[in-house]
Amino acid sequence: MRGYSIAKDDYQARLRRIEGQVRGLQRMIDADAYCIDVLTQIASVNRALQSVALGLLDEHVRHCVTHARGRDGHAEETDMVDEAMQAVARLLRT
Amino acid sequence: MRGYSIAKDDYQARLRRIEGQVRGLQRMIDADAYCIDVLTQIASVNRALQSVALGLLDEHVRHCVTHARGRDGHAEETDMVDEAMQAVARLLRT
Amino acid sequence: MRGYSIAKDDYQARLRRIEGQVRGLQRMIDADAYCIDVLTQIASVNRALQSVALGLLDEHVRHCVTHARGRDGHAEETDMVDEAMQAVARLLRT
Amino acid sequence: MRGYSIAKDDYQARLRRIEGQVRGLQRMIDADAYCIDVLTQIASVNRALQSVALGLLDEHVRHCVTHARGRDGHAEETDMVDEAMQAVARLLRT
Repeated sequence: MRGYSIAKDDYQARLRRIEGQVRGLQRMIDADAYCIDVLTQIASVNRALQSVALGLLDEHVRHCVTHARGRDGHAEETDMVDEAMQAVARLLRT
Repeated sequence: MRGYSIAKDDYQARLRRIEGQVRGLQRMIDADAYCIDVLTQIASVNRALQSVALGLLDEHVRHCVTHARGRDGHAEETDMVDEAMQAVARLLRT
Repeated sequence: MRGYSIAKDDYQARLRRIEGQVRGLQRMIDADAYCIDVLTQIASVNRALQSVALGLLDEHVRHCVTHARGRDGHAEETDMVDEAMQAVARLLRT
Repeated sequence: MRGYSIAKDDYQARLRRIEGQVRGLQRMIDADAYCIDVLTQIASVNRALQSVALGLLDEHVRHCVTHARGRDGHAEETDMVDEAMQAVARLLRT
């Protein structure tokens, strides 16, 4: 699926914030911040990334369904669902 | 989605194996097995459960797509995708 | 580490409950329960297993520190392991 | 624990790489990259962050044990923490 028209700005804003958090992690390491605080911050970045991933996945699956509707299906949507499930598997194994 | 016709026996076989693994965990605790071995076994059970979950999710999304195809869509499939994404979110946060 | 003296009964009770949940999953599949409800239940079993794992890990690391400390320890290491384990818990829930 | 003397440069290098990956994600969104490719890249960033987290956690727990041990330690605790950390890694990859 291409063209994240509606949510594109939102994704970009969230990714810029995540980029800022990763730079924050570098400053924490540089300043010898307490290890556990760094771990907490890493967990927060991971959560933010997973949230972006879930948004993208939601759009993708929704697109499969919308696209499939009203057509005499050929195999394309099935392939897209295959790919989506493989992506979920990779995220679960992170 | 109801009626896991094709894969039902497979799911049952895998869940019976998982049940056996959980009983194995009880025996390990009972026998004061080495803690790290118990943790390894727990990770294995979790992996087996995630694998069942991914199989079910795959069927569910595939069903949404198939069901949507050739109909003038009303909102039902959209709700099903909503639910599927919430289920993925719960699995990711396990 | 061997001999989970204090928590052993607690672990066994939790594992028996988990075993019951896995049997419940088999009944759900057998009764063609709604897929999303099965996924929710799987997420719940995974969480229960992770909780047992974290308990065991906590005991293990605590044992490392206590054992290493000899006779002249003060409480600081115990707090540090606490924090480490809470961090692991957050990462696991990412 | 403060002062990640040995591994500090390594952590910084890895975090800079992760920062670059997050900027790459922004470019992918900007260029309307295929959603599944973005998800794959997110899974990769998460894995890289988890790896940093596990490194920090390992140092932390090791420090607990070393600090507790005083002068008369032998190597057993170190092995136990090794194992504990490997178990956490497996659980995180569930």
